[in-house]
Amino acid sequence: MSARAPIRVTIWNEARHEQKNPIVQQIYPLGIHGAIAQGLADRDFLIRTATLDQPEQGLPQALLDDTDVLLWWGHIAHAEVEDGVVDRIQQRVLAGMGLVVLHSGHHSKLFRRLMGTNANLAWREAPGGDLERVWVVEPSHPIAEGLPPMFEVAASEMYGEPFDIPQPDEIVFMSWYSGGEVFRSGCTFKRGRGRIFFFSPGHETFPIYHDRNVIKVIGNGVEWTMQSHSDGRILENWHRPEALPSP
Amino acid sequence: MSARAPIRVTIWNEARHEQKNPIVQQIYPLGIHGAIAQGLADRDFLIRTATLDQPEQGLPQALLDDTDVLLWWGHIAHAEVEDGVVDRIQQRVLAGMGLVVLHSGHHSKLFRRLMGTNANLAWREAPGGDLERVWVVEPSHPIAEGLPPMFEVAASEMYGEPFDIPQPDEIVFMSWYSGGEVFRSGCTFKRGRGRIFFFSPGHETFPIYHDRNVIKVIGNGVEWTMQSHSDGRILENWHRPEALPSP
Amino acid sequence: MSARAPIRVTIWNEARHEQKNPIVQQIYPLGIHGAIAQGLADRDFLIRTATLDQPEQGLPQALLDDTDVLLWWGHIAHAEVEDGVVDRIQQRVLAGMGLVVLHSGHHSKLFRRLMGTNANLAWREAPGGDLERVWVVEPSHPIAEGLPPMFEVAASEMYGEPFDIPQPDEIVFMSWYSGGEVFRSGCTFKRGRGRIFFFSPGHETFPIYHDRNVIKVIGNGVEWTMQSHSDGRILENWHRPEALPSP
Amino acid sequence: MSARAPIRVTIWNEARHEQKNPIVQQIYPLGIHGAIAQGLADRDFLIRTATLDQPEQGLPQALLDDTDVLLWWGHIAHAEVEDGVVDRIQQRVLAGMGLVVLHSGHHSKLFRRLMGTNANLAWREAPGGDLERVWVVEPSHPIAEGLPPMFEVAASEMYGEPFDIPQPDEIVFMSWYSGGEVFRSGCTFKRGRGRIFFFSPGHETFPIYHDRNVIKVIGNGVEWTMQSHSDGRILENWHRPEALPSP
Repeated sequence: MSARAPIRVTIWNEARHEQKNPIVQQIYPLGIHGAIAQGLADRDFLIRTATLDQPEQGLPQALLDDTDVLLWWGHIAHAEVEDGVVDRIQQRVLAGMGLVVLHSGHHSKLFRRLMGTNANLAWREAPGGDLERVWVVEPSHPIAEGLPPMFEVAASEMYGEPFDIPQPDEIVFMSWYSGGEVFRSGCTFKRGRGRIFFFSPGHETFPIYHDRNVIKVIGNGVEWTMQSHSDGRILENWHRPEALPSP
Repeated sequence: MSARAPIRVTIWNEARHEQKNPIVQQIYPLGIHGAIAQGLADRDFLIRTATLDQPEQGLPQALLDDTDVLLWWGHIAHAEVEDGVVDRIQQRVLAGMGLVVLHSGHHSKLFRRLMGTNANLAWREAPGGDLERVWVVEPSHPIAEGLPPMFEVAASEMYGEPFDIPQPDEIVFMSWYSGGEVFRSGCTFKRGRGRIFFFSPGHETFPIYHDRNVIKVIGNGVEWTMQSHSDGRILENWHRPEALPSP
Repeated sequence: MSARAPIRVTIWNEARHEQKNPIVQQIYPLGIHGAIAQGLADRDFLIRTATLDQPEQGLPQALLDDTDVLLWWGHIAHAEVEDGVVDRIQQRVLAGMGLVVLHSGHHSKLFRRLMGTNANLAWREAPGGDLERVWVVEPSHPIAEGLPPMFEVAASEMYGEPFDIPQPDEIVFMSWYSGGEVFRSGCTFKRGRGRIFFFSPGHETFPIYHDRNVIKVIGNGVEWTMQSHSDGRILENWHRPEALPSP
Repeated sequence: MSARAPIRVTIWNEARHEQKNPIVQQIYPLGIHGAIAQGLADRDFLIRTATLDQPEQGLPQALLDDTDVLLWWGHIAHAEVEDGVVDRIQQRVLAGMGLVVLHSGHHSKLFRRLMGTNANLAWREAPGGDLERVWVVEPSHPIAEGLPPMFEVAASEMYGEPFDIPQPDEIVFMSWYSGGEVFRSGCTFKRGRGRIFFFSPGHETFPIYHDRNVIKVIGNGVEWTMQSHSDGRILENWHRPEALPSP
């Protein structure tokens, strides 16, 4: 095993709340993407950020091609993301790029596209938030590495069941909320050659992305979704005109 | 258990090969949809057929709303199916309509939409076809009811691995081809409230839809994808503004 | 579809708490098995009960052979169940008998045998119990038929994650506890030709088996684990000395 | 990421065919365990071998405790493996030791214990063997790293469906046989903290363990089943007598 090159991580954020809402600005002066980038600074990642209002909505093909793992945070501007951008991200995931979908990204065109469902759920944005307790369901999963059996997010937006997703390949975390609901808060999926990790804790008006456990989960998620394979093709439409030789 | 009403089945066929190709016309004088309808005549189904060249591409909302299980056969005209039609079928599946996707339907917009992948595979259309042996992998599955452990399709288009789909919920059949390949030829998936069954044997230039085992599988697939639930809503975006009372 | 014969249900209970503990006797004067039998009386089931202290520990081969679905409740006497009895139940499940494992049955030899794990979990038996909220995770599952999105068990023993089981085939229910934990409280598994449903709410010192939602879940579980297949063999060790003919 | 210590691999072989059968002796003069050890020599593994006729059947607790990944080959002596030995291996797997089960190990007490089923299958031992074509079903799986889309085993014992196992977590390989059958020949399972990989190609009278693709799969399987986690406990029976504080 030779030394591994740093994982090339691109953190995409729609970054609209940050332009309008002073509370969000106060909590995330560098933007949600900036907070996550800061949190992950001590990992062996090469981090870039991108936002919706940049050219090509922040994600030109060249950047995607140079990205091992993409993080996605969106909320109020899901509808503005162009279908062509969703197309090219989807194809990169199917070709092996890792994807970490954060919080309200569950309703993004991208996540819905990859799931095939509406990805609806129950939700509550209480003024002071709900206490969320995040339980580790699969303690030996690499994404749970270094975490306690349970950690708390003091103020969280509630996301509850039923969550309209296909059966996840793995459930790493399940959450309890003080208001009475439960949720599959950390799930993995494989699509094509790519790995996807969805993690729900994280909200624009709560300082969740400054929480060290949350950041550890996201960092572990990046490492887990990173493919070891060098093959960067999609699974192809493979014409095999000739039968194999009879024995 | 009171007597059940007949399952309302709609067999959709793009029905283009039948308009152009005399070989297909000879094998399927009633169209592929007609052959399947004929095959299923002795089941307790209320069968309607629909084709691409009908108004609203054969699937107006009213017909979808009156359909318990939809069968889908398409091939050369996948691109012509309008996104809006795909949207409304998808929402009906998520609300509980059963869906049976046949053969080359793997590449339809509809199936790709529901899978989140390209649904590519390996394939070979040999002049005389491949001998396909369809093995029952899960003998106690309702879709395998009444079938022998293996049945043969004398001339088949080869569909082989790797098949770019998410992990199926269940693998009911796996196929062997004389040309040397293998395939997960009968798979189930749940999306939203709906059940999906994909079954690969079936091709326009081979009389596969006249085979009694193939027809039995399709009939079983209709019964299995039929929901027992009366609830015809999608899983909703459920706002729960109030916390539940503390104990 | 002809009329179905009633499902032959055997409710097995170790029935030891009932012999010693006046509180249990008061709550379950007919025993836990009796309470469940009473609850299911209006279903189209042919119900028998069996207990550990009967000959052959209540489950002679003839009774197993005449049982479509077995319910299992055990707790303090798991170790007394003979390995030979476990062997024959396991083989009946693999041959297609349905199995509903209730509450502390998670630690039975039988459930551990079928799971291949220790089936450990977190637990708390608080004097007044925890409030348990049971959420429906998969609303279109037959086991969830007729239930509200969430129902409460006012006083419950807490069973929490991590639950040491293989990934379930389906998660139908997840629970929230007032003490702060979460749990996959309703899970399905297939083993051989048999279907297994584990449902955790239910405890000897709380009147949970008098709750109509709990009873509805158990009744639905019986119907779901019941095989439609008539084949009553195990999946065999199948010697196939001859190759199939070459095409 | 610091440099990783070599994986401590123990290759266990019942090693009985080698004592009796001159053909096996000729093909595997060092035993099947020796051939595999030789094949894996260029991997960064610390390899030990163990056999049934050694004290404590080759697997004293101290060796298991010093083993990261165990390989298991058995056939004619499954019944001789003591239940106590199976117990302690199972507990080590549940505590995180990796396990690679080879070929006829499908019928070992150990594999059956971990699956909860009989693990029966169809089989044929033709004099010259069947040609087996091993197809990669999940090309981006680490166990498939460095392999072609398909590789052949010129002479193989046929193992066919239906294979009586719980649904695998992942299917990495599927096989085609010249005699007409198909098989899920490479499957992964998680049990407790441990990872299990079953791989079917391999037989005492064919030189399959000298095949470089087969050896590559086994080596990849060792790396994949190796836990990154340092936690060496089983998932425990976790008494939590106190509720968490109310928010």
